[in-house]
Amino acid sequence: MEKNFHSLPKNAKCTRCKKQAILRLPSHNAKFCRECFIHFFETAVIRAMKKIKVPKDTPIMVAVSGGKDSLVLWDILNRLGYKTKGIHIDLGIDEFSQKSIEAIEKFAKQRNLEWIKYDLKDFVGHSMVEIHKKIRRKICSFCGKLKRQLLDIATVAEGFKVVATGHNLDDEAGRLLGNLLGKRLQYVKKTYPYLPSPHPKIPAKIKPLYRLEIKEILIYAELNSIQPVEIDCPLSKGATSRKFKMALDLLEDQMPGIKRNFLFSYIEDNKPIDTFENYNECKICGYPTYLELCNLCNIKKQLSS
Amino acid sequence: MEKNFHSLPKNAKCTRCKKQAILRLPSHNAKFCRECFIHFFETAVIRAMKKIKVPKDTPIMVAVSGGKDSLVLWDILNRLGYKTKGIHIDLGIDEFSQKSIEAIEKFAKQRNLEWIKYDLKDFVGHSMVEIHKKIRRKICSFCGKLKRQLLDIATVAEGFKVVATGHNLDDEAGRLLGNLLGKRLQYVKKTYPYLPSPHPKIPAKIKPLYRLEIKEILIYAELNSIQPVEIDCPLSKGATSRKFKMALDLLEDQMPGIKRNFLFSYIEDNKPIDTFENYNECKICGYPTYLELCNLCNIKKQLSS
Repeated sequence: MEKNFHSLPKNAKCTRCKKQAILRLPSHNAKFCRECFIHFFETAVIRAMKKIKVPKDTPIMVAVSGGKDSLVLWDILNRLGYKTKGIHIDLGIDEFSQKSIEAIEKFAKQRNLEWIKYDLKDFVGHSMVEIHKKIRRKICSFCGKLKRQLLDIATVAEGFKVVATGHNLDDEAGRLLGNLLGKRLQYVKKTYPYLPSPHPKIPAKIKPLYRLEIKEILIYAELNSIQPVEIDCPLSKGATSRKFKMALDLLEDQMPGIKRNFLFSYIEDNKPIDTFENYNECKICGYPTYLELCNLCNIKKQLSS
Repeated sequence: MEKNFHSLPKNAKCTRCKKQAILRLPSHNAKFCRECFIHFFETAVIRAMKKIKVPKDTPIMVAVSGGKDSLVLWDILNRLGYKTKGIHIDLGIDEFSQKSIEAIEKFAKQRNLEWIKYDLKDFVGHSMVEIHKKIRRKICSFCGKLKRQLLDIATVAEGFKVVATGHNLDDEAGRLLGNLLGKRLQYVKKTYPYLPSPHPKIPAKIKPLYRLEIKEILIYAELNSIQPVEIDCPLSKGATSRKFKMALDLLEDQMPGIKRNFLFSYIEDNKPIDTFENYNECKICGYPTYLELCNLCNIKKQLSS
């Protein structure tokens, strides 16, 4: 971040208002003062919400991990007047989870925001650290599945129909690149910031930050004194998703703007998914699933055998 | 190259014959002795030629720049028994062109191979260095077009129906990545190592090295005492194609094999192009072109105006 944020000469002018600029966004070929950067950031989220087509008065459950993306998401949705509630899934990853919860508590208290915590352990009887020790393999995609099901359950249980996640432009472009390299074209077609509800027990999912780069989110966090958890998940080392982001960063450094043009060109030609496969009911708990068992019951079965 | 070629422990065994291995190919999860590496390399080209479906007795014009790819291509096609002739397009790029021609002369003399040289200057009245000075912009794609037309003209003039180029796996995967990132899906569909002749004046084009990585080509060159020109083209600095290759190298380092799986998965679903747009005749020289003027007449016109 420092490269963009601190190194401007004293006479650098804001691209929008011509006052003193404090930061530079190479991918937009722009320099901004504080106010115009906030305006730029708000505009990006407003444009995203237009694409997403969620009415302004729909209450939004915000999935809050405690990291920069989710706290910034929560902040900007409130700033833009959305009615929100935070939902945190406590995965039980030792110090990482504790510090995450502290960051959320502090953030929510300062802004007087409502939030709630669901514990993985209450649903499967084990923390993610315990699960990792037992199944001994790369856990990211696995953890993601459990987290998504718990988010769905919590969102519906709290009376919400929409859950927002903090996925940013880098996340989405990285995933798209991975799907293109692996020729998973069925997922390429699904690249979209809005996934309608496919079943009464599963909420719609939205990604209001999909137009914003990680660098821009870090700048917004700093300008608004948002203090996310500062340690990385200890179980996510070597996550494949990071590698695709690194490859895109290398290209972005040399061809500013390629990352956003890449992602947006694919989203532009896609539509929100409007046909869904038929769900089965999980044979143990009845929760909607494409398989025999839902993700939660599946892990419980694996752990008990 | 050194990393793969020189750093094996003394007791490392060849994956194929179990003798002492001298090199390691992480993307194939294999170690090879000299003989088994050559066998591996030949097999890759034999598989490519099967895909390409050029009969063994068809004489092949080999486009020879003097670089590692084209000299290795020429060597392996002769080793496999193809009847070949080398064609070099002298672009007139000062020391780079002189050294390239010296490398070809030496290589061909050692192996008693026939080759011929066509000069860009004879066709447009200017060397590439002179053209670069006049038009003052990035010249790679431009130079490529002129080179391709001259190759086509020379191949047909010399009585050949097929011209082979030294494009390797990295070239092809890099170009595919660039086309996917830019969402040029019409080019993605054309990713294939064989382009049939679309017009009597235009030969078929083949890429027999498309299954081989640049590292493997360098190893083959070293094992066979092939000495390519060692300087890079001074006009190609900052070529976009290099950036996509670098991004793929970064991914390949961490996920060995991803580059070949990526390229092959797209080629697997494609077919050689079998419908061609109708050609016009160049209004000046009558050469087949999709535009009003062919590339050579177009540059001559630009330079004279």
